[in-house]
Amino acid sequence: MSEHPRTMRWNGDSHGWLTMIDQTLLPVEFKEIECRTVEEIWEAIKMLRVRGAPAIGCSAAYGVVIGLQTLADDADRKEFDARLEEVATYLAGSRPTAVNLFWALDRMKRVAAENQELAPKEMHTRLLTEAVAIEDEDREMCAAIGRHGAKLIESGTGILTHCNAGGLATAGDGTALAVMFAAAAQGKEIQVYADETRPLLQGARLTTWELQQRGVPVTLICDSMAGQVMKEKRVQAVITGADRIAANGDACNKIGTYSVAVLAKAHGIPFYVAAPSSTFDLSLENGELIPIEERLAEEITDGMGKQTAPADTNVYNPAFDVAPAELIDAIITEKGVIRPVTKENVRAMLEA
Amino acid sequence: MSEHPRTMRWNGDSHGWLTMIDQTLLPVEFKEIECRTVEEIWEAIKMLRVRGAPAIGCSAAYGVVIGLQTLADDADRKEFDARLEEVATYLAGSRPTAVNLFWALDRMKRVAAENQELAPKEMHTRLLTEAVAIEDEDREMCAAIGRHGAKLIESGTGILTHCNAGGLATAGDGTALAVMFAAAAQGKEIQVYADETRPLLQGARLTTWELQQRGVPVTLICDSMAGQVMKEKRVQAVITGADRIAANGDACNKIGTYSVAVLAKAHGIPFYVAAPSSTFDLSLENGELIPIEERLAEEITDGMGKQTAPADTNVYNPAFDVAPAELIDAIITEKGVIRPVTKENVRAMLEA
Repeated sequence: MSEHPRTMRWNGDSHGWLTMIDQTLLPVEFKEIECRTVEEIWEAIKMLRVRGAPAIGCSAAYGVVIGLQTLADDADRKEFDARLEEVATYLAGSRPTAVNLFWALDRMKRVAAENQELAPKEMHTRLLTEAVAIEDEDREMCAAIGRHGAKLIESGTGILTHCNAGGLATAGDGTALAVMFAAAAQGKEIQVYADETRPLLQGARLTTWELQQRGVPVTLICDSMAGQVMKEKRVQAVITGADRIAANGDACNKIGTYSVAVLAKAHGIPFYVAAPSSTFDLSLENGELIPIEERLAEEITDGMGKQTAPADTNVYNPAFDVAPAELIDAIITEKGVIRPVTKENVRAMLEA
Repeated sequence: MSEHPRTMRWNGDSHGWLTMIDQTLLPVEFKEIECRTVEEIWEAIKMLRVRGAPAIGCSAAYGVVIGLQTLADDADRKEFDARLEEVATYLAGSRPTAVNLFWALDRMKRVAAENQELAPKEMHTRLLTEAVAIEDEDREMCAAIGRHGAKLIESGTGILTHCNAGGLATAGDGTALAVMFAAAAQGKEIQVYADETRPLLQGARLTTWELQQRGVPVTLICDSMAGQVMKEKRVQAVITGADRIAANGDACNKIGTYSVAVLAKAHGIPFYVAAPSSTFDLSLENGELIPIEERLAEEITDGMGKQTAPADTNVYNPAFDVAPAELIDAIITEKGVIRPVTKENVRAMLEA
């Protein structure tokens, strides 16, 4: 496996520290920060130095380990539990809407609760093991998505992607990008076209950077050029990530994904979604039930350090849209590939 | 007709001056500049203070009138002709690829050549009359497009547009926007959705500004949101301009237009192109023959005052694309509406 920057890296034993890429400085500057206090972890999550649901979860788990380092050597179990509760509550306040954050903190607390027999020092070591397990599972999930997805990609394929479903959002290789990394690692020649992804430009800022770091050929385009690169037969497949997938396979993802899916269908190009099974929300029958967040006008009118529209311009800024299942040729999960995308196939794969 | 800023305005007789909007300051600042020397006209065209083919042509025609003001009262016809040639050659160097610029300058020189009997002072007045005629014809062309196009728009229609096909590029109401202004002037309630139009953001900077100035409701969106606003049934028609139209009706326009046309077809929404008959190039059988200009990577990676992609990112930046005739429901010209868009109907309308 080639050496490339890792989203995060734990150093040492339970009294070690967490190194992570400061993603707010990308793509202009690559800088790693060292988090040695729980306050530094909190700040890194709050300020989006680390972002992406899985990566936030992993960071928070390590944050718990770091937070427990302030306990005295002779602290008793009661003091340990009190500090654990304090640290978890504190970290939970860093990004109150991040589901993976709570999931990881709850998992750490559950491990502590289930191991009452351990002395504080042993418990601290046990929790580091759990944080490492969370990170390893995330990395293995990414690798499995890559393995399954790479089978869909032939050498010589041009691949369009939208937004950033890359390693920076996870501890591993990401989701959509994991497929590309795996295909490239198998020696397949691929050429990625990355939509810049307005308004927040995750494609320009992060996807191009990740692919460059790993030596995968990438060409940046504006979102409005997706149709043209398809018409010119530059791409033979589209792969995106997903934020939430309904029971019938309708996939909610970054705004613009729906347009890309329609364009792919019109050009006879397969449209793939890569996402872990945890992305599915079977309580929602279809994508129409997924609430779409509307974000601030300023992201569009003043998003890049310069006012680009008249003051008080009326703006519509939905952050996500939904690619309906009938436009999705396959959903690539860590458990395997769902194809065709039907309610029955989704259920069968998740229960596998 | 409501009072609204005019792209340009001549003041006084042949010794007058040209007032124009400095479009480089929009949308942050509205400022009119007064051009009283031919050097000021040259600089305004060169620096894009005035842009858009028809508007450049009109400015250059007035520039000729201004350039002749330096002649002495007792200048003879020979001195007049020499100065005319000097001024025209000078202005032609302001934007060497602008076809309308040469067209307007040639027309002014032809009028002078055809009126050898006039004394220099009378000739100067005659050339002002010609410049005014060029401007008036342009304004009438826009108005006619608006009249014909407005018949296609019912009250209550949401209209999506891409880039800026507005009054700022002409002496009048523009092309696509002329249709919207005319519909609104007839009391029809319309709601415009303006694609911001990456990379150069003409939609965000100019289209929203023009519509706001005229009191037409407009909502700014990112290009990637066009599919979503169609899916949400917010728009019932798409109208764009065109830079060049082939004999079969294939229309070349700002990059992103092709994607919008495909999306409109997929949603059963009519897609209209508004353009003067001078936009047609019957020497080209179809749109595949229209050369597509590729522009600098920096427009995408550093376009808005901030680096948004890693250094040395590979970029594909086609400036235009082609909406094929089969995706265009009608082409609105100053002579009438071409519908359906076929080679025969194009020819018949242009010969009308």
